[in-house]
Amino acid sequence: MTDVILASKSQARTAVLRAAGVSFETVVAGVDEDAVKAGLLAEGQGPREIADALAELKAIRISRTRPGTLVIGADQTLDLDGQLFDKAQTIAEARDRLRLLRGKTHKLHSAVVVARDGEAIWREVPAARLTMRPFSDAFLDAFLARAGDELLGSVGCYRLEDDGVQLFSRIDGDYFTILGLPLMGLLDLLRRHGALPL
Amino acid sequence: MTDVILASKSQARTAVLRAAGVSFETVVAGVDEDAVKAGLLAEGQGPREIADALAELKAIRISRTRPGTLVIGADQTLDLDGQLFDKAQTIAEARDRLRLLRGKTHKLHSAVVVARDGEAIWREVPAARLTMRPFSDAFLDAFLARAGDELLGSVGCYRLEDDGVQLFSRIDGDYFTILGLPLMGLLDLLRRHGALPL
Repeated sequence: MTDVILASKSQARTAVLRAAGVSFETVVAGVDEDAVKAGLLAEGQGPREIADALAELKAIRISRTRPGTLVIGADQTLDLDGQLFDKAQTIAEARDRLRLLRGKTHKLHSAVVVARDGEAIWREVPAARLTMRPFSDAFLDAFLARAGDELLGSVGCYRLEDDGVQLFSRIDGDYFTILGLPLMGLLDLLRRHGALPL
Repeated sequence: MTDVILASKSQARTAVLRAAGVSFETVVAGVDEDAVKAGLLAEGQGPREIADALAELKAIRISRTRPGTLVIGADQTLDLDGQLFDKAQTIAEARDRLRLLRGKTHKLHSAVVVARDGEAIWREVPAARLTMRPFSDAFLDAFLARAGDELLGSVGCYRLEDDGVQLFSRIDGDYFTILGLPLMGLLDLLRRHGALPL
């Protein structure tokens, strides 16, 4: 089997790929994502392009050091009416974010790029659309108290796989896209390159 | 908070509802599902109608014994070109089933019905469409050996939340529908009836 590296420290991505039965190693790319993001924003790039560029950067950087290995880079951005939102740094910031998203529909762009020998050989950037219901402030405060610092690890400040689902009225999109690792096309690519059985 | 009962012994449904933060009790309805299904098939009912009828039957039966309680009934059927497929009883049967589904698109109909005081007050029967890739017999045998008897508990004989995802080339539909408990409309109903906070 061809070697596979996941260039991400995200627990959700690691869990998705492991559950799917893929054998892989995790290597963190050490990209200064904030600096790259700031540069791309200054260039006028949107949330979709930024997710794609960051996924590619992480995949290519590691793939240069590991000849022949398939390196999976991934990134996810939150897009509210074309504006990019980053992970919240504090619970207070998460609270502001969720109040801003309340009653509106936002997009999650989930980029996945596979690189080999320093070049991107495959990519996909699907989006999911999520609509938050007009939840009460009391609901929000109770949710924040239950969830705590776990909210700070995801771009949306919600844990959709737990009771964060109660924040939403509608979810359109693939589950793996929402978790941050679009899977079906990736599994196909891994099969075609000898990293999974046919 | 209004009391909630889940009329299902399915581990997947229990896990979905618990993760979503709903407080509920599980009560099994004791419906002879095989007999009911045979009767409905004899009447010419299709896979969608049968899922709906079984979900309703389970919800209503328990709700008669528990006044004021919201009782959630659920059922899922597999539909290949209009034909209903039941859970496999043996691994050999699961193997035949997966060979039949290979390379084709089938539907999963997931019915959820909420009853109160012996009457259905809400229902939903969304479907997901799943396409299996032309996997090899060697892949199938290895999959069956890994999965074992766990396959017999689900209508599709696959464990999509594990490496069963490798059987597929395409999945269209809500994740909760695939797991057997369409969730978003149900959460809304539970909120409107005082079983979840607003």
